[in-house]
Amino acid sequence: MPEIRKDPVFGRWVIIASGRQSRPNEFKGESAPENVRNCPFCPGHEEETPPSVYTLYAGNGKGAKARSKQRDWRLRVVLNKYPALVSGGSEAHAADGIYDRMDGVGVHEVVIETPDHNRQLEDMSVPEIADIFRTFILRVNDLKKDPRIKYVMIFKNFGRNAGASLAHPHSQIVAMPMAPIRVAQEIAGAKKYRKDRGACVFCDILRQETGYKKRVVGETRNFLAVTPYASRFTFETWIIPKKHQSHFERMEPGLAADLAAIVKGTISKLRASVEELSYNLIVHTMPVRNPAAGHYHWHIEIMPKLSQAAGFEWGTGFYINTVSPEDAAEMMNKGKKYKL
Amino acid sequence: MPEIRKDPVFGRWVIIASGRQSRPNEFKGESAPENVRNCPFCPGHEEETPPSVYTLYAGNGKGAKARSKQRDWRLRVVLNKYPALVSGGSEAHAADGIYDRMDGVGVHEVVIETPDHNRQLEDMSVPEIADIFRTFILRVNDLKKDPRIKYVMIFKNFGRNAGASLAHPHSQIVAMPMAPIRVAQEIAGAKKYRKDRGACVFCDILRQETGYKKRVVGETRNFLAVTPYASRFTFETWIIPKKHQSHFERMEPGLAADLAAIVKGTISKLRASVEELSYNLIVHTMPVRNPAAGHYHWHIEIMPKLSQAAGFEWGTGFYINTVSPEDAAEMMNKGKKYKL
Repeated sequence: MPEIRKDPVFGRWVIIASGRQSRPNEFKGESAPENVRNCPFCPGHEEETPPSVYTLYAGNGKGAKARSKQRDWRLRVVLNKYPALVSGGSEAHAADGIYDRMDGVGVHEVVIETPDHNRQLEDMSVPEIADIFRTFILRVNDLKKDPRIKYVMIFKNFGRNAGASLAHPHSQIVAMPMAPIRVAQEIAGAKKYRKDRGACVFCDILRQETGYKKRVVGETRNFLAVTPYASRFTFETWIIPKKHQSHFERMEPGLAADLAAIVKGTISKLRASVEELSYNLIVHTMPVRNPAAGHYHWHIEIMPKLSQAAGFEWGTGFYINTVSPEDAAEMMNKGKKYKL
Repeated sequence: MPEIRKDPVFGRWVIIASGRQSRPNEFKGESAPENVRNCPFCPGHEEETPPSVYTLYAGNGKGAKARSKQRDWRLRVVLNKYPALVSGGSEAHAADGIYDRMDGVGVHEVVIETPDHNRQLEDMSVPEIADIFRTFILRVNDLKKDPRIKYVMIFKNFGRNAGASLAHPHSQIVAMPMAPIRVAQEIAGAKKYRKDRGACVFCDILRQETGYKKRVVGETRNFLAVTPYASRFTFETWIIPKKHQSHFERMEPGLAADLAAIVKGTISKLRASVEELSYNLIVHTMPVRNPAAGHYHWHIEIMPKLSQAAGFEWGTGFYINTVSPEDAAEMMNKGKKYKL
């Protein structure tokens, strides 16, 4: 069982998961391969993953007739074969001298976004991408039924520089027994802003960016995409819902298509502007047990990882970005390629 | 002039330094080159760097005779040609609607550790490494004479996965007008520990690790090297002085040789255990204007960057480590190579 350990100085939790060491890594050799034959996420290899917890079938949705053709799926959610956290065990803390640890209790799922090994997220249709986001919402609402679960993190690692180990389009869902420290810090920062200025900081960002325009890289009826003022990463982009809401999983399902459209547009622009795009996409949301709050506003952060990105920011929180968000937005909006 | 921008949610500062984009990068092509001919840090290329602010000469130290032979240096400190921060400008904050920014005021220096392009830190003699640490101490004490400087960060990026752009052995010193948020958070965490338990958390770590032994990877008269309990990175190692002291730059110069010995031993062990070692070495210390404190204890953190390290921890503070620190320490102490 993985173990969650707390750093006694910083208070951050680290998952020590030795089993993940043995997971396959397609990117170990040269550039991203197209080895459909060995891909555990491709049709015909369903037995190589743990059983699916949720499936969308081709044709008429999830009808009994469709379900009989087990391979005829268009989206599958399966347990991660090499999980960072597992169900079973207790969420009780244990002291180890001055240290603090707990069992690595939680759920680690993989969303296989399409049967097509080479069809990237931005190549899919808006209805297909909307299905992925609706699936996220369904899974969060299901996972939070377990009272031990306090936070559900939804993320997608794309490309070798972003830490992806398999090329087949997929995203991940990790349900965990505490909120990660950075989430808690972000919410505390937003709470302080609201206390000081009487408004939601994200609502204020929406207002200022809509007026300023030079950092806007996409807009739909319900969402705005911007390169944030203090971008840590070159071409960092946030997608923010226009209507204030603290929890992602409480989004009206009717908005999924609009969210899909702005995600597709944003990633397409990133791919046009960044050579060999790698990125981490992370849904930032309130812990599932917290009530709706005026100070926090869910959103999506997309962090491109350019191949020569300096690594030491990692441990220090001291970020250096060599492209201003205004220049990044201009390049993205003009379809200009950035030269490393 | 670089600009420092504050994220309105998180409170973290980001340096937007467009000039750094044009700096050379030896690692762009294949693996680390040995192109001494084009290296700006090699002897004979002194004009390619900004003038040196501090130099140690071969032979009898810094005597007038030695100084006459300008190329006969064994260590040089020069201004970074592509600085993240520059002197000049003001440290006053400026509002930009809801945002906050200031001039990128500060000093960014490079310590060229040796004239020899291919002689890595762990290959140098203990007296040579001690000179590097004594130089750090001298530079911090000089830089802090500028009242605008609040924090001096000392770090070394080694290898392409750690963000190094030049292969010639060097480290960096950044003097800045505020403490990075992660530094402030670390000190706050240590302060809370001291308030709750009445002791310095690092002194307690020293006590527990000395007793437990299984995470100790090096010990000298004055320092202990351990793989920390909640290691974020595989083979992460901390070097902690046994005597409580909050400021690195107040270390007795007599301890430099002992510090050099444990750094040499630790990095040698890391090189034996990790294939194609890349690492970030960071000196964690109190902001220079803060008084000596019982709750904070300077130390060095070495974070190896294995080539396939997942990247999304970067933005989330949610770390997954697939090798326990006890296993890492055992491999380091037995000289066993870790297979990715």
